[in-house]
Amino acid sequence: MIDVTVLGATGMVGQRFVERLSTHPFFRIAHLTASDRSAGKHYAEATPWRLHSTPYGGCGDMKLKPSDPRDAFSPIVFSALDTAPAREIEPAFAQAGAVLFSNASAFRMAENVPLLIAEVNPDHLRLLEIQRKKSGNGGGIVCNANCTATVLAMALAPLHERFGVEAVVMTSMQAVSGAGFPGVASLDIVGNVLPYISSEEEKVQAEIPKMLGALNSVSIQPAIMAVSALCHRVPVIDGHTEAVSVKLRGNPTAEQVTRAMSEWTPEPQRLRLHSAPERPIRVHFEENRPQPRLDVEQDGGMSVHVGRIRPCPIMGIKFTLLGHNTHRGAAGGSVLNAELAHAKGMI
Amino acid sequence: MIDVTVLGATGMVGQRFVERLSTHPFFRIAHLTASDRSAGKHYAEATPWRLHSTPYGGCGDMKLKPSDPRDAFSPIVFSALDTAPAREIEPAFAQAGAVLFSNASAFRMAENVPLLIAEVNPDHLRLLEIQRKKSGNGGGIVCNANCTATVLAMALAPLHERFGVEAVVMTSMQAVSGAGFPGVASLDIVGNVLPYISSEEEKVQAEIPKMLGALNSVSIQPAIMAVSALCHRVPVIDGHTEAVSVKLRGNPTAEQVTRAMSEWTPEPQRLRLHSAPERPIRVHFEENRPQPRLDVEQDGGMSVHVGRIRPCPIMGIKFTLLGHNTHRGAAGGSVLNAELAHAKGMI
Amino acid sequence: MIDVTVLGATGMVGQRFVERLSTHPFFRIAHLTASDRSAGKHYAEATPWRLHSTPYGGCGDMKLKPSDPRDAFSPIVFSALDTAPAREIEPAFAQAGAVLFSNASAFRMAENVPLLIAEVNPDHLRLLEIQRKKSGNGGGIVCNANCTATVLAMALAPLHERFGVEAVVMTSMQAVSGAGFPGVASLDIVGNVLPYISSEEEKVQAEIPKMLGALNSVSIQPAIMAVSALCHRVPVIDGHTEAVSVKLRGNPTAEQVTRAMSEWTPEPQRLRLHSAPERPIRVHFEENRPQPRLDVEQDGGMSVHVGRIRPCPIMGIKFTLLGHNTHRGAAGGSVLNAELAHAKGMI
Amino acid sequence: MIDVTVLGATGMVGQRFVERLSTHPFFRIAHLTASDRSAGKHYAEATPWRLHSTPYGGCGDMKLKPSDPRDAFSPIVFSALDTAPAREIEPAFAQAGAVLFSNASAFRMAENVPLLIAEVNPDHLRLLEIQRKKSGNGGGIVCNANCTATVLAMALAPLHERFGVEAVVMTSMQAVSGAGFPGVASLDIVGNVLPYISSEEEKVQAEIPKMLGALNSVSIQPAIMAVSALCHRVPVIDGHTEAVSVKLRGNPTAEQVTRAMSEWTPEPQRLRLHSAPERPIRVHFEENRPQPRLDVEQDGGMSVHVGRIRPCPIMGIKFTLLGHNTHRGAAGGSVLNAELAHAKGMI
Repeated sequence: MIDVTVLGATGMVGQRFVERLSTHPFFRIAHLTASDRSAGKHYAEATPWRLHSTPYGGCGDMKLKPSDPRDAFSPIVFSALDTAPAREIEPAFAQAGAVLFSNASAFRMAENVPLLIAEVNPDHLRLLEIQRKKSGNGGGIVCNANCTATVLAMALAPLHERFGVEAVVMTSMQAVSGAGFPGVASLDIVGNVLPYISSEEEKVQAEIPKMLGALNSVSIQPAIMAVSALCHRVPVIDGHTEAVSVKLRGNPTAEQVTRAMSEWTPEPQRLRLHSAPERPIRVHFEENRPQPRLDVEQDGGMSVHVGRIRPCPIMGIKFTLLGHNTHRGAAGGSVLNAELAHAKGMI
Repeated sequence: MIDVTVLGATGMVGQRFVERLSTHPFFRIAHLTASDRSAGKHYAEATPWRLHSTPYGGCGDMKLKPSDPRDAFSPIVFSALDTAPAREIEPAFAQAGAVLFSNASAFRMAENVPLLIAEVNPDHLRLLEIQRKKSGNGGGIVCNANCTATVLAMALAPLHERFGVEAVVMTSMQAVSGAGFPGVASLDIVGNVLPYISSEEEKVQAEIPKMLGALNSVSIQPAIMAVSALCHRVPVIDGHTEAVSVKLRGNPTAEQVTRAMSEWTPEPQRLRLHSAPERPIRVHFEENRPQPRLDVEQDGGMSVHVGRIRPCPIMGIKFTLLGHNTHRGAAGGSVLNAELAHAKGMI
Repeated sequence: MIDVTVLGATGMVGQRFVERLSTHPFFRIAHLTASDRSAGKHYAEATPWRLHSTPYGGCGDMKLKPSDPRDAFSPIVFSALDTAPAREIEPAFAQAGAVLFSNASAFRMAENVPLLIAEVNPDHLRLLEIQRKKSGNGGGIVCNANCTATVLAMALAPLHERFGVEAVVMTSMQAVSGAGFPGVASLDIVGNVLPYISSEEEKVQAEIPKMLGALNSVSIQPAIMAVSALCHRVPVIDGHTEAVSVKLRGNPTAEQVTRAMSEWTPEPQRLRLHSAPERPIRVHFEENRPQPRLDVEQDGGMSVHVGRIRPCPIMGIKFTLLGHNTHRGAAGGSVLNAELAHAKGMI
Repeated sequence: MIDVTVLGATGMVGQRFVERLSTHPFFRIAHLTASDRSAGKHYAEATPWRLHSTPYGGCGDMKLKPSDPRDAFSPIVFSALDTAPAREIEPAFAQAGAVLFSNASAFRMAENVPLLIAEVNPDHLRLLEIQRKKSGNGGGIVCNANCTATVLAMALAPLHERFGVEAVVMTSMQAVSGAGFPGVASLDIVGNVLPYISSEEEKVQAEIPKMLGALNSVSIQPAIMAVSALCHRVPVIDGHTEAVSVKLRGNPTAEQVTRAMSEWTPEPQRLRLHSAPERPIRVHFEENRPQPRLDVEQDGGMSVHVGRIRPCPIMGIKFTLLGHNTHRGAAGGSVLNAELAHAKGMI
């Protein structure tokens, strides 16, 4: 068993980390941290648990530590910190020799930080070695992407591999859990649609080319593709729905696109990693699927769902995409990244 | 006062017709019709009234007639029929000499039927004269478009006029009232998104070019533009939100697009028609607007709302669009069309 | 393995029966039936599957039979029929020698039909023997109660046992799945509360005294207690919440009531029946629990949840109650009843 | 025109005050105040406007003042303060000579403060004179009640007048706007019911007897009646639904209760006060009414709605009740109270 720390354990993503890690076969929660306001309290006392699994992942009695490597060091650290605190705290843990798997956005676009989805760009993990060579102490940071970008990257990866993605227009209908807790006010979303999510479109447009980019000796060469994101919030608890129009090289047919997605079997599936879903993409053939309510919890929320693959008169191909924003798009993605690093002997 | 008949008065759109016409300055409801099952009953008895205005528009005591010109003829007829019955009933009324303003889809794409939005293509109304010349009895059919297409056409019209629309990708998040009553099952939509609405994408893709097309002596030459629609249902009562990306000739800036929309003052506004909103397009500058809950009821639901006009790296311009599906996109649009015909002396 | 038939397998409760029985340790689905419109089709073809478990319970390829014992006889029959068809079909199966476990309301109040909740009144099952003696062929009907009444009876049973219930006022906030599919129109419930559910209050008021009544040699003597039900529909998918005020003999304290509920270990739990939850009532101590979203799926939806047990200035005790309407309140309850009959050697 | 100040103008209730007062025939907004964080900013800048009327009530350019009588004195003051700041600020304005009409809970139960609903207990306003005699400067505080209690008191008042209320059990299903903005987190309420609202049950149980109590020379003698409240939050934007069971002296029939409610014409209606609805109680006869979506906005949200008046086997009478929590239950109630004081020549 490998000891791990969860930074920022009381928020929505922190709760998902605890939920997953409390039953993990080889990671064991050694420390949970929180902001100064909550440090010192028991996890159950400080946490507005909002999941319907075992309350507090059975860790309700653990005492929350400050988010400081002197108090809460583990060789492996999962970060659910907000961006601002992550800027200070994550490097402190890395300098203390920890490898961080972070869900924060602070270092996603940093040059030698991999923006990793285990299925999409497992080779980018080599950037961690470059970081370690620099730091000399074994520490480093591995980021996972914004939840909306993650779900989109999962669907685009096999298409980019087989055909090449030239341009993508993506309109999202995002779940409220993506904004954390308390997050979106109910007055703003009951019976309503919000046409704006702060920084979300910019993140998707920046992160997709990096994730689909090519690794050279020291950094990532972003993929050359145009990405346009139009992001919305809808009254759904879990599951981001994305309406995707994509221009692919060679103008493949809907059948060819379906095949590329169905057949895609990347490294985590070949390695049968613990948190990897059997199929990374589930292609649906009913005309009214996927739907958050019926599909998003399948495979523990780790697969993404594609349906209605059909021709687009402008971009060539369009389809509906769905993925779980706090499992696949957050905590589950980080844990799977750590399992990949473990399988490769890097941690 | 001009006598009018409402065909299919008990459904959601029929209710909106009754709501509007019961207080109209120069149209007076002479007949309400319903299917054979309901004909003969009082309007209040047969109608699951679902609006929060005066119940039954004050017409609860009117006796429902069969949808037959022998029982329910008026010189002006508003049709809220479903497509299948509309195919038989609307021509019967036209042959009896009535002018129909129809919300049904049955004849929208028929050659000499105008697909009319009073602000967008008022000149298309001349097709009615061609119909009348043929029929010889003064009867004819004027259709309004699908609700989603109507809202989109309102936003595109000033852009097509000033710049020329080359292509448009539109992703809708549509209200449940668009499906009528009982319509969408609550089990399908509470906390959920449905990625499919039967025939909706096809209708938008066919109707937009016709509405933005040019009238020649006998028919409409559809505008040459590519339209891609991706339609979704969301848990909102009234108001279709549309995420629009558009390619315009000459690549105007967001400022130029904003100006074109803000300055647009088409015929119904110049004529100050009774049901015409003061401004056909309200441009919002707050980053999180328009929203169905806060904006859709403004101007009696007859204006459309545009916000977040911004550059798109693929299409050039993108923006958020919102319109009321049962007012502007259905009954209100038909009534305004009739007012336009009246102002032009055609009825 | 014992062959079973599910009558009315395509509806919401039918789907729950198939979901449960398809993985049952000793019941095996032999026949699925449907109305004449669907009989002959494959289950997948005729069923709007709305659960997020394995689609069609893996029975998508089974051919639907007519609801007739000549076509679909099994020794054990689960009925998810609507009331009207149940009146004819259920006796036909009983006369053919089947034992029916029925969720329909048709025979709930019939004299020698047990209205059975395995935890609440297991002794009432003896009425089945009386039926069999009469019929002579081994057939009979065992009903389970209305979903709202079932959840309430679960909470009242240990209180009636220990103290005696004199009166109960119950206000429900019921999930839309209780109305089946399509059931409640989304226009009626998104952002709304409906203050009326047809016949629901009458059912609760009649069924509670029968379930808590005493078995004499040939029938049930209803418990003498006053029951007032006020039923509402709210925009929740699964889980009926009930606000309960109860007058108990001897005016026990909230602590005594808590203890009675927590300690209750009726027959299905002592027998460790397959579908019996570990604890029939889960008592919550957080002030804002139970909630449908966080609690109702626990124990496969088979336990009920009680919280906020506190004094009532009028009735003595009040509390919040929550139960799963289609698991505990419908299919799960019937299956558990069958397991009880099986454990007692009656089937 | 009489100058007025709105204390705490940026919150949900403050917004409702501004909405009402900006178009009032004889009150004119002189000052809007906010917390120190917002004082000095323009109203539009500091306020997350969430109503669908004219943005900022047309007062977007007014500069927010600190909540201090030296900066924002008017002879009439409306308070939308939170309880804690109200404890200091309201007496400061009263001591400066202002009459406050307050929606805060700080002084509701204070001995010589009237807890006023203009229709329910207009005579209690005489307590203001006692306050003024004490203070000597004309200042004083008039409170309105908790929103849930207000709606209930409106329905009980004609029954208490005609029959006498002995006991009432009230289960509420409350809208999210009652918690202000941001208020209830969407994660807690989308597709869910919350069985707890902090202090709400206590407020209802204390305030009802005071409001229905009798004025003696210096204070209110609370009515002797038992009140039990069970409060819940549901995903509704505006409108509290209450399921009410009531024990009345003499056990009147449902018809007698209906008549008492329908015929009730209290002082504000007789005086035709500006904000008074034509009928204080609208009795509905359809079995599925009232509903928040269809009924709560009628009469500008100032009437309450009663439906399903029927016998209760335990309490005698039960019915469904609905009222607008931020109009009738908050800002509208305060403004009506001020109009009553004005009509009586007290301000």
